[in-house]
Amino acid sequence: MTQGPSAEPGVIDLLGLLAYAELGSFFRLADDAGLAPSLRTKGELAGLAATEQSHYQAIHDRLVELGVDPEEAMAPFIAPLDAWHERTEPQSWLESLVKTYVGDGIAGDFYRKVAELADAETRALVEDVLAETGRAEFVAGQVRAALEEDPKLAGRLSLWARRLVGEALSQAQSVAVDRPELAGLLSRGSERDKSGSGLGDLAAVSRMFASLTEGHTARLAAMGLAD
Amino acid sequence: MTQGPSAEPGVIDLLGLLAYAELGSFFRLADDAGLAPSLRTKGELAGLAATEQSHYQAIHDRLVELGVDPEEAMAPFIAPLDAWHERTEPQSWLESLVKTYVGDGIAGDFYRKVAELADAETRALVEDVLAETGRAEFVAGQVRAALEEDPKLAGRLSLWARRLVGEALSQAQSVAVDRPELAGLLSRGSERDKSGSGLGDLAAVSRMFASLTEGHTARLAAMGLAD
Repeated sequence: MTQGPSAEPGVIDLLGLLAYAELGSFFRLADDAGLAPSLRTKGELAGLAATEQSHYQAIHDRLVELGVDPEEAMAPFIAPLDAWHERTEPQSWLESLVKTYVGDGIAGDFYRKVAELADAETRALVEDVLAETGRAEFVAGQVRAALEEDPKLAGRLSLWARRLVGEALSQAQSVAVDRPELAGLLSRGSERDKSGSGLGDLAAVSRMFASLTEGHTARLAAMGLAD
Repeated sequence: MTQGPSAEPGVIDLLGLLAYAELGSFFRLADDAGLAPSLRTKGELAGLAATEQSHYQAIHDRLVELGVDPEEAMAPFIAPLDAWHERTEPQSWLESLVKTYVGDGIAGDFYRKVAELADAETRALVEDVLAETGRAEFVAGQVRAALEEDPKLAGRLSLWARRLVGEALSQAQSVAVDRPELAGLLSRGSERDKSGSGLGDLAAVSRMFASLTEGHTARLAAMGLAD
């Protein structure tokens, strides 16, 4: 196994996390088919899921190019991500859409972190993923349209969005304990200071949490929801 | 709604059938994730499913271009295809693979029929789909490898393949009764003789069945199974 010069463990962790997150979202979206209100939305849902699969494939192939076993890189994140999905199973089509939007938003934050830290080729891949804004707009638009039709939904969906992030933070807590290098990397901001590796202290974890929730309020507003 | 010159009802039926078949296979494959023996195969399964989605999308968009509502075109085939999936739910990863291969094979026969009968643009789309042989080889290879490791599986999987086709014929029977134009079209061979429209007689239906099972034995042999 040969690793590229910039394939530091924290970046590989981030790519493994994102790969399994995309694969998990793929299966979760497909599983939500029963919630789709029509054959048309069922088809759209399949399209959203296929986008997750293409992101998974791109990260998977990049990990192989970096000389990393993709399954090994994903392994540490299976339990926390599966737990997140189990604890936040959507009960309606709108909850499924809000989950897609919130999950994509958090993933976007992680992708941006990879773009800051990784080698040029990995950065190009990440920028391709981040450039796909049409999907997020489609999802936010669907939620906004539903809220315009029935404004009473806003309270319940805002609570749902809060639960999604709360459960994500709770899983992130256990990841931070298990993967101090990753927590250190995420808490460091954009400077490439490797002295932070091994940081597992509470300050680093809370900086990681701040980074995780950053942008969440803006994303809720884009869907017409309150924080 | 304007229809292209070659968008005869039988061809639209075929495209609607194939579109819903691809969408159904997408969700079925994703649903089989629990059967995948490893994270690696789970990822491969997501890739197989995403291919079905891309075929679905291509036919969907072609139907729109032909001035046809894709959901309307799919509607007559929802019940029989859903029933087929319900009656042939794979209980193992190998059963899931054999189902993918048999289902793809039958779909291939229908795609070839579309290629004979449809306009040039639709034919180009269909030929793109049919050119993707890598997937079928991958699936057949996986089944052959499993049989080499455990030859005792052959009997059970051959029975399974027979059940898959038997249940498909049983659903085709009800489609033939409901859609005599489609049955006529499928029984006509390659001549573009439109006088067959409306044929709902037993001879046409059995010719359609012969066409459906054509190639099935060869496909079984490709997987190392007996008819």
